[in-house]
Amino acid sequence: MRIAELSRRSGVPVPTIKFYLREGLLPAGQLTSPNQARYSDAHLHRLRLVRAMVELGGLSIAAVREVLGALDDPAKSMQKALGTISAAVAPPDLGTEDEVAHQQVEEFLARQGWVSRPASYAHKALVGVLATAREVGHERFTDLLDGFGRAAMPLAEADMEYVLAAKTKDGALEGVVVGTVLGDAAMAAVRAMARRELSGRLTGEEDEPQPC
Amino acid sequence: MRIAELSRRSGVPVPTIKFYLREGLLPAGQLTSPNQARYSDAHLHRLRLVRAMVELGGLSIAAVREVLGALDDPAKSMQKALGTISAAVAPPDLGTEDEVAHQQVEEFLARQGWVSRPASYAHKALVGVLATAREVGHERFTDLLDGFGRAAMPLAEADMEYVLAAKTKDGALEGVVVGTVLGDAAMAAVRAMARRELSGRLTGEEDEPQPC
Repeated sequence: MRIAELSRRSGVPVPTIKFYLREGLLPAGQLTSPNQARYSDAHLHRLRLVRAMVELGGLSIAAVREVLGALDDPAKSMQKALGTISAAVAPPDLGTEDEVAHQQVEEFLARQGWVSRPASYAHKALVGVLATAREVGHERFTDLLDGFGRAAMPLAEADMEYVLAAKTKDGALEGVVVGTVLGDAAMAAVRAMARRELSGRLTGEEDEPQPC
Repeated sequence: MRIAELSRRSGVPVPTIKFYLREGLLPAGQLTSPNQARYSDAHLHRLRLVRAMVELGGLSIAAVREVLGALDDPAKSMQKALGTISAAVAPPDLGTEDEVAHQQVEEFLARQGWVSRPASYAHKALVGVLATAREVGHERFTDLLDGFGRAAMPLAEADMEYVLAAKTKDGALEGVVVGTVLGDAAMAAVRAMARRELSGRLTGEEDEPQPC
């Protein structure tokens, strides 16, 4: 297909596609003339994946490039590729040295019975969130942590099952990307829906759709 | 305090603070000379809240401005302010018309026994996520939804308790912002930690910290 059709089918504007091509997020099409290239279904699939990472996952171009590099490198072991992907899709590490927040994460992990991995991106991200909560005067935010922990383990089991159901290494890695990026976005939406449902029940309001 | 101290204590660079001042995200300080202003602890608190929304929540400047407007408007009812805040912190609405994804969300809500609010931001966001999953060939992603639903209701109850514990309307509204923005970031981090914990247990690897 031509770039115009690629744009129409992916919902990504042509200038954005050209930007992704320049940035190496999308492999070049097959040249049919000096100014024209043809793209395949593989390009369309890749483009949709890039769009999901950028628009839903809020990933930077650099992070998307790292994820794609891990997906595309046949020499990389599953474990190494997973490490690269986890790093790229991880919530931002605010680089805090808040000792209290560090301690709160350790205590949370001990209560859950989970191994502490202070060097991991997720661990650092959680420390950053708790440090921020303290900074804005919401120390009580840590009260919510145990609920997150209880909710997260069954979700992780479902994620794992989802990834293991893939038949190839490529499929499994893509499953991790999709599960994380789409999973975090879906979880945020479902949490918001549950809050709305609960507040509807508590206030006994009419069951009509409301724009909030 | 002077702007340099505000910067040091908030961790926000001076040029960024000036940008927030120009954009109206931070009220002007009290002028002490034509070129110098003094800032209070209220400025510091507001700046930290803005930083959390931008860096952890990934909110746009426009969205932050709307949230702050809702927090600051004494004439706005709690319900209206909550609507504005929900809209601003909602995951992006990809504006899809994917009928299958719409149907999948309706079926999910019916299984959970939740009221359908198709006009709500969270509802549209979830439709967008499911449409994206279908587009990238991951129809099976919907299998994860019921797990999200089961996990979300106890979290929503904890959120509600957290917000209701605030003593003022301002406090409650800020609790919603903190709970949503920090809550989504914390939940993403805890989900990643749970996945890592589970994969550690399954592969029986050594319990040493690893950077992934």
